[in-house]
Amino acid sequence: MLSLDQVFNAQTVLKSIIRETHVVRAYGIAPECELFLKPENLQITGSFKVRGSAYKLAMLSDAEKEKGVIACSAGNHAQGVALAASRCGIRSVICLPDTAPISKVEATKGYGAEVCLVEGCYDDACRRARELQAEHGYTFVHPFDDEYVIAGQGTIALETIHDLDDIDAVIVPIGGGGLISGIAYTIKQIRPSIKVYGVQAAGAPSMYRSIQENSIQCLPSVQTIADGIAVKQPGENTFALVGQYVDDIALVSDDEVSSAILALIERQKMIAEGAGAVSVAAAMFGKFPIAGKRVVSIVSGGNIDVTSLSRVIDRGLRNSGRSTSLLIELIDKPGQLKEISRIIADCGGNVTGVHYEKGHTESVNGCFLRIEMETRDFDHVRLITQSLRGEGFKIV
Amino acid sequence: MLSLDQVFNAQTVLKSIIRETHVVRAYGIAPECELFLKPENLQITGSFKVRGSAYKLAMLSDAEKEKGVIACSAGNHAQGVALAASRCGIRSVICLPDTAPISKVEATKGYGAEVCLVEGCYDDACRRARELQAEHGYTFVHPFDDEYVIAGQGTIALETIHDLDDIDAVIVPIGGGGLISGIAYTIKQIRPSIKVYGVQAAGAPSMYRSIQENSIQCLPSVQTIADGIAVKQPGENTFALVGQYVDDIALVSDDEVSSAILALIERQKMIAEGAGAVSVAAAMFGKFPIAGKRVVSIVSGGNIDVTSLSRVIDRGLRNSGRSTSLLIELIDKPGQLKEISRIIADCGGNVTGVHYEKGHTESVNGCFLRIEMETRDFDHVRLITQSLRGEGFKIV
Repeated sequence: MLSLDQVFNAQTVLKSIIRETHVVRAYGIAPECELFLKPENLQITGSFKVRGSAYKLAMLSDAEKEKGVIACSAGNHAQGVALAASRCGIRSVICLPDTAPISKVEATKGYGAEVCLVEGCYDDACRRARELQAEHGYTFVHPFDDEYVIAGQGTIALETIHDLDDIDAVIVPIGGGGLISGIAYTIKQIRPSIKVYGVQAAGAPSMYRSIQENSIQCLPSVQTIADGIAVKQPGENTFALVGQYVDDIALVSDDEVSSAILALIERQKMIAEGAGAVSVAAAMFGKFPIAGKRVVSIVSGGNIDVTSLSRVIDRGLRNSGRSTSLLIELIDKPGQLKEISRIIADCGGNVTGVHYEKGHTESVNGCFLRIEMETRDFDHVRLITQSLRGEGFKIV
Repeated sequence: MLSLDQVFNAQTVLKSIIRETHVVRAYGIAPECELFLKPENLQITGSFKVRGSAYKLAMLSDAEKEKGVIACSAGNHAQGVALAASRCGIRSVICLPDTAPISKVEATKGYGAEVCLVEGCYDDACRRARELQAEHGYTFVHPFDDEYVIAGQGTIALETIHDLDDIDAVIVPIGGGGLISGIAYTIKQIRPSIKVYGVQAAGAPSMYRSIQENSIQCLPSVQTIADGIAVKQPGENTFALVGQYVDDIALVSDDEVSSAILALIERQKMIAEGAGAVSVAAAMFGKFPIAGKRVVSIVSGGNIDVTSLSRVIDRGLRNSGRSTSLLIELIDKPGQLKEISRIIADCGGNVTGVHYEKGHTESVNGCFLRIEMETRDFDHVRLITQSLRGEGFKIV
């Protein structure tokens, strides 16, 4: 049974395993509120998940420890279980779908787990994990719907309250709901005046819908760059705890998440994965009544593929008017590129790419010019497009 | 005169201005040593520079404070002076060359400085700053060759020693030498057994050469991705202090720096700029005798342009065999892409881009196929190229 004692006990157990992450002030990201971050992306394994797993493992009986544990995950939970098991000298087996990225497989092995690649999707890997569990007597470590796991995640609330006084609200990502359950439960026991807000990705709103409908909903599919919280169905425990202790839940779009990741890179010099940045996106884009309040966003993880990272940076720059791509229709006469370059330079834009593209232009000999450039903001983009139009260029 | 008292005094003065950055263990980056990081990239303004500036400003007389300060910088020093001045209620003017990136100009304004854009290069901006200084009686804040500035940077050594026992060595980036002068001086007073190693970029080895030649050298030009330490000439104070207190200096290449930036992103979830990562690169690539030792790399800053960041990530992936680009000569017959895709897939490579390119092939109808893919490491790349060659494909 979840209790504050469990959370305090988890804190003691985790002391020698996890890294201390310090609440830090974040300037310039969400200027209407006084924003702080709890950077669990800097946690060992790059995510908070190791807390719940490590506490779960610590609470196993000697016989269970002897047999080992199994989990199914292509992400942070896998690495959390793997590291926690290694630290406790317990054997761990992680089932992953064989479509999982190389980097995730290598990382999981690197933390000391045996990796079992299963043909098919995530559900196939889970089925295999359950089979292996039955066959070998492993303990199955659920990623969120387990009271020890939830108690482990609750330690984040203890640390946050310890680091910072007079908090008005905390904003927490929701996937299956383990993280927010632990945090909300703990906070409402100790400082019930602090609001606890949850955030889901608009493309994976399982807990949001379930709370709305007042019954657990299973989404047919989920799609979001916040892959760490792309969960189709909340757990039974987590659904109940969120219903009881969470004040409100909001959704954020992939574009909002991209902007938050970019803001964290530029302002805080830290990498957050999509799931980790939803709590910052919610603060940036005013999803909760936090103007003038002292707010802590839980940045839950930082395990983003570097190739995804490049794409997210591009998207974030574009969404904030900091980079722009214009398609200009050219007629067939010399000196047009020179003219366009001059106008953009006069406006203070910095050209970073130029491509001629074929296409159906009015003139048979016409073509399109794609100009990529760095700009200051959307006003700056408007200034440039108006200047180009003013000199007779047609922007498509 | 620089003294330990000055450094301790700076620590007291800075307490209310700067952010506490905590020494953190870095796993998997330089496995031969026990590597820790002092993350000054997480410092307010994204770099350690604010320390020296803030202490310098605090030590001004009331009359000097009244008149204000001036500095010349397109980078971290500008932001450090701007923030320090704002916090102390002092007017600050920063001269920048008008070629400085938009983001740097905006950031400097954002911290409260008046920005004076000067036509030309860095040297022109500095000349203008000296003129304005004479005209208005501003105090000129030197980026490194100033004993108060050096004392301010020395506070990093106090914090590092406080956070971590039994340090064998610290590794410190060198540009003009202010950072390492403060750190080396302080460490050798308090814990003389700790080795202090300096690192410069191979494309800007001004202090390295000066120490070698035993006299201050001025490089005709500097070129490195570590733009924050691209300094042509060390200062007189810093040259003397480095000569007296620094145990050794090494150089790192841009490729090594890129790999270090990537490692910090992936392993530590933090952004370092090139200058900030040279100390990590030196540990990764064995530039000093630190095997088995407890080492702290000072990550001096995190202000890297996000567009540069994308390029550095690409380069870092390529240099570690994690992404590969193969150019394969195709003869004109159907099914070749299918065949190549199969071979790569069988080897476990993940194709991320395919382009047909024209070029001078043996057959008139031939062409080149450019394949981009994610790979595990160089062994993996070799496996794939050998398999392709084994099935008759010609890799250019």
